[in-house]
Amino acid sequence: MSHFDLPAGYRFAGIASGIKTSGKLDLALICTDQPAQCAGVFTRNKVVAAPLLVSKPRVAAGRCQAILINSGNANACTGAAGRQVSAASARLLSEALEISEELIAVASTGVIGVQMPLAPFETGVPLLVKALAAEQAGQVAEAIMTTDAYAKIASARIEVPGGECRILGLAKGAGMIHPDMATMLGFVLTDAAVSAELLDSALRRAVKRSFNSITVDGDTSTNDMVLLLANGASKTLPIKDDTPAAEAFIQALERVLLDLAKMIVRDGEGATKVVRIHVTGATDEQAARTAARTVATSSLVKTAFFGEDANWGRIIAAVGYSGVEVNPEQIDISFNQVPVTRDGLSTGPGLEAEASEVLKLDEFTVTIDLHQGDAEASYYTSDLGYEYIKINADYRT
Amino acid sequence: MSHFDLPAGYRFAGIASGIKTSGKLDLALICTDQPAQCAGVFTRNKVVAAPLLVSKPRVAAGRCQAILINSGNANACTGAAGRQVSAASARLLSEALEISEELIAVASTGVIGVQMPLAPFETGVPLLVKALAAEQAGQVAEAIMTTDAYAKIASARIEVPGGECRILGLAKGAGMIHPDMATMLGFVLTDAAVSAELLDSALRRAVKRSFNSITVDGDTSTNDMVLLLANGASKTLPIKDDTPAAEAFIQALERVLLDLAKMIVRDGEGATKVVRIHVTGATDEQAARTAARTVATSSLVKTAFFGEDANWGRIIAAVGYSGVEVNPEQIDISFNQVPVTRDGLSTGPGLEAEASEVLKLDEFTVTIDLHQGDAEASYYTSDLGYEYIKINADYRT
Repeated sequence: MSHFDLPAGYRFAGIASGIKTSGKLDLALICTDQPAQCAGVFTRNKVVAAPLLVSKPRVAAGRCQAILINSGNANACTGAAGRQVSAASARLLSEALEISEELIAVASTGVIGVQMPLAPFETGVPLLVKALAAEQAGQVAEAIMTTDAYAKIASARIEVPGGECRILGLAKGAGMIHPDMATMLGFVLTDAAVSAELLDSALRRAVKRSFNSITVDGDTSTNDMVLLLANGASKTLPIKDDTPAAEAFIQALERVLLDLAKMIVRDGEGATKVVRIHVTGATDEQAARTAARTVATSSLVKTAFFGEDANWGRIIAAVGYSGVEVNPEQIDISFNQVPVTRDGLSTGPGLEAEASEVLKLDEFTVTIDLHQGDAEASYYTSDLGYEYIKINADYRT
Repeated sequence: MSHFDLPAGYRFAGIASGIKTSGKLDLALICTDQPAQCAGVFTRNKVVAAPLLVSKPRVAAGRCQAILINSGNANACTGAAGRQVSAASARLLSEALEISEELIAVASTGVIGVQMPLAPFETGVPLLVKALAAEQAGQVAEAIMTTDAYAKIASARIEVPGGECRILGLAKGAGMIHPDMATMLGFVLTDAAVSAELLDSALRRAVKRSFNSITVDGDTSTNDMVLLLANGASKTLPIKDDTPAAEAFIQALERVLLDLAKMIVRDGEGATKVVRIHVTGATDEQAARTAARTVATSSLVKTAFFGEDANWGRIIAAVGYSGVEVNPEQIDISFNQVPVTRDGLSTGPGLEAEASEVLKLDEFTVTIDLHQGDAEASYYTSDLGYEYIKINADYRT
């Protein structure tokens, strides 16, 4: 953890409570010594998991001191019994930490539709509280994993009036990553002093350009949430809206979230490539986003990426059915710097062969210029290969 | 072909013209002895292939006598040169048949973005005209195939005032099958006497409940079209709107199109199962269609079908993000007759194990009851397995 910038005043713990039968870490705790300002973004799925029902009103009140997270069971589609367990787990933690329940957020990730027992929390919460330590953020990142191949951590450091403050982000997510959803779970912690209002607008802007601009399989989870806490422990001056410090904070936040988002795409179930779909020349940002998202979610496009085939026909067809008004005969498409389509027509087999070399890279950009205006937007997507099928066909068995 | 009901007055031909380097059939002709009334449904993709630009205004005029179809090259994203080839191919046929160009529709399917030469039409059209025969419909079905594993033909026979008439449907489609698109190509021929207006409304209704209610991979092609011709050669009385004969005709047409649509799903690239997603208890038909479509296009749901996993959590999550207003705790889900979810909760491992047996079938129905109203709708989808990736990653290589 030494290469990450740890914000002051936070402590972390991750343990194996037995929810995962594999014996891997499955219960995590994030604490701040003093209550923090907080903001959150939650799933727009109409089917909302129990922990979100507990956490949403508390986050909306703008204050949070601890986050309790389990993996291995989503506690979704578990009815009144599930909600009782989520509420009771927060109550157990509030007693152990001797703080108000209202300052505790809970989150879950894992299988849907299986009742969540309270027992792992009864035995686990005291162990978590005992294990809390400032340098254990890595344990949290590990304990929130499900099908993730690796833990996801990113950080940033910024100068603000009165000194330096830090932003640390922890995330999990591999399947079911899609726009209009946060990642499955993201926890972002800063020791800056920021009002709940500024936190909220900063988080929404940063999420739009990061977690809501990635897609792995187009599905949207019942459990997704991103929480942002600011505890002011850096002792720097409060960051006020519409100041250079606020802008620096927002940009650093975006960087951290985009780093995490790209890690999620790279860890997309079975992904072998991270591809940025960059739409330029759109009439407005919404049109650019819609076109980029449609290309990024096309199974045929993603399968062609896996096959390392510069199949621009599938890309232009996806733009065509995106609903965005386009003139197909004005569209240019490039793979990195290699143009394969000019004015909607092939640039020939020579350049297409060159583009096929770009497709062999782990990471590349497809630029689609609509030549209709000045707006642009990017989506990050992965390829669709055999491993995706393997992981998802067998997930529960 | 003896087991299909062939409408009177149509002749067919299919040949290998060299567009497909494999030497397989790739050029087809459908002719009626007298000009027929006609109706058509075309792709809504903004990127529209050249043959559709030629055919649309002619079909809109309501009369057609011949359809010239090639496979192996979509003639899409080929600009002015591609449009010239499509128009010239129709002109060649009009000269060979000695009929007006305006009575000729053209269609193409295959790879996008490759220029289409005129030569195969120059040598092929005379051969096609010479080969025309009433019993060669099967050759047409074969000559329009691309990644299809088998030819798709369906027929029906109905009693109308004055005697009997017949409907024959020929279709191709495996990849890129999605709602709001016809199949890649569908040609429906009847010897009934039907006005162009009634044909148009009948076709739209039937397409909505068949080709527009199937999905394989969610992509929408640049070339999709369905044409319906009625030549009156049965010598039965003209079918008038709002009569029992009109209703019988529409129902028979729906049956033929739904038969073809299910063949397309079964032939979905790499599909091993045909699954009907049947949403009931919706407030209106649009809501039912939206919920069914969202479930039918979810990669996670389709992968679970491939894995024969009764993963109702993914189904309820897809309903949740469909945008349809639902109360998750009122949703019931069954696999055929086996309930796995009641009031949004699991019915337990016993019934889930029973449902897993249903998933081993080639064909089954997932019924999702929203308990909000009386409307219902169905979508037909396939599972998503390794073969899909294999076929689509390597399509052009």
